[in-house]
Amino acid sequence: MKEITSSQNSLLKECRKLLSRKYRLKNKQYLLEGKHLVAEACQAEITLPYIFIDDLQLASLPWLKNYQQSLILLPRGLLIGLTEVESPQGIVAVAAMEETLPPARWSGRWLLLDRVQDPGNVGTMIRTADAAGFAGVVLGKGSADRYSPKVLRALQGSQYHLPVLNGDLTELLGKMAETLLIFGTNLDKQALDIRQAPRAADLALIVGNEGQGVSKELLEQTDHNLYIPIIGKAESLNVGVAAGILMYYFALFDS
Amino acid sequence: MKEITSSQNSLLKECRKLLSRKYRLKNKQYLLEGKHLVAEACQAEITLPYIFIDDLQLASLPWLKNYQQSLILLPRGLLIGLTEVESPQGIVAVAAMEETLPPARWSGRWLLLDRVQDPGNVGTMIRTADAAGFAGVVLGKGSADRYSPKVLRALQGSQYHLPVLNGDLTELLGKMAETLLIFGTNLDKQALDIRQAPRAADLALIVGNEGQGVSKELLEQTDHNLYIPIIGKAESLNVGVAAGILMYYFALFDS
Repeated sequence: MKEITSSQNSLLKECRKLLSRKYRLKNKQYLLEGKHLVAEACQAEITLPYIFIDDLQLASLPWLKNYQQSLILLPRGLLIGLTEVESPQGIVAVAAMEETLPPARWSGRWLLLDRVQDPGNVGTMIRTADAAGFAGVVLGKGSADRYSPKVLRALQGSQYHLPVLNGDLTELLGKMAETLLIFGTNLDKQALDIRQAPRAADLALIVGNEGQGVSKELLEQTDHNLYIPIIGKAESLNVGVAAGILMYYFALFDS
Repeated sequence: MKEITSSQNSLLKECRKLLSRKYRLKNKQYLLEGKHLVAEACQAEITLPYIFIDDLQLASLPWLKNYQQSLILLPRGLLIGLTEVESPQGIVAVAAMEETLPPARWSGRWLLLDRVQDPGNVGTMIRTADAAGFAGVVLGKGSADRYSPKVLRALQGSQYHLPVLNGDLTELLGKMAETLLIFGTNLDKQALDIRQAPRAADLALIVGNEGQGVSKELLEQTDHNLYIPIIGKAESLNVGVAAGILMYYFALFDS
């Protein structure tokens, strides 16, 4: 097994750059921290060119059996430089981005994110879409980077369970509308109470930016715009919670 | 108006200590950062002994009219020392804790948190309980401190809209069970699918620790234990999202 002992090692310096979005896009690679995320990537047979471990015992984990060529031993002090967490679990992998193309024909339930900026919200919503049996998620322009360490932590591996695409929502909606019922979300009371939403097995649900909601332009392209009634005195719901209520409404109660 | 210009000012040093839980509990005071949170506290007529502002224009805000005696001008450089946010909004208040006692007779819908540790989750769940028209929230032992800056940011003022109590859940459940139907949550498939949950206008819903869920001891004290079906491949839902789905299930669909 290879071993790196110097912080000035050129491969290590190269991999460290993947903590920034710019280099992730340039190299088409990203970092995965912790046993759970790396195990999910191995199970999904993702290409992992390098897997840094600080403990030889890790090398014998059964899910690493097809990745022995990628293993590199790295002291704990240097491993910390590859993550944003304070107490890393002793394993960090470099993963290759895999481009997911839009389907030729849209079917099933899709979650569309319009400029959702908080990494925790983006990760949580993809994880909820996975749990609710959605077909996939589309991240519109201006949404948090799905490969950022914070999004990946909130995702808990769900990115390997369902397709996650990047795309221009305005452009995609035209094609989607051929086969999907399009729902926007809008706090405006002129929208439709979630309880009056028509039933649909093939749909797109658009949720929006934390402060501004879904853009006016997109709301005009939908079949229906929904709102979740606020019964108490809160001004609004957290967007990740609202998306969860809506997705499970369609998944469980709308049939 | 008073003004503080030195970082060594004894009042300022005393207030800065409120960033730690220990001093919050000792002084029975906490810090509120930003216009939105301070405005909510003013509207709720919370006692605010000190309100630090870095801009005289803020002093003329209409919701500060009953708090002119509390205002203290403080340069931006010193104001930053009173918050955890990188770009504070120019206003930080010291608020007095107000103890909320349990009602003599429990009624309505209550959310109970069993050792929920993430401050964002605790804040978001109280905000969702507010939105869903719940009667109140009880934070069991081991839950994140409701007065920590992170919880307060996620709360967005909801703590002034509904009662939030601290309490020993095991002890409280006995009394609650006299008038409320008690629901636990449990990923175990022996629990009841949320769609089969009986209807109830007066209930307690217990959600649990991020990793371990609701304690076994509490699950044995409930009338029913519920689970949200996982349709896809995710192992679980974020607890804040799960609580939102369950609370809105009772609030909207269960009537």
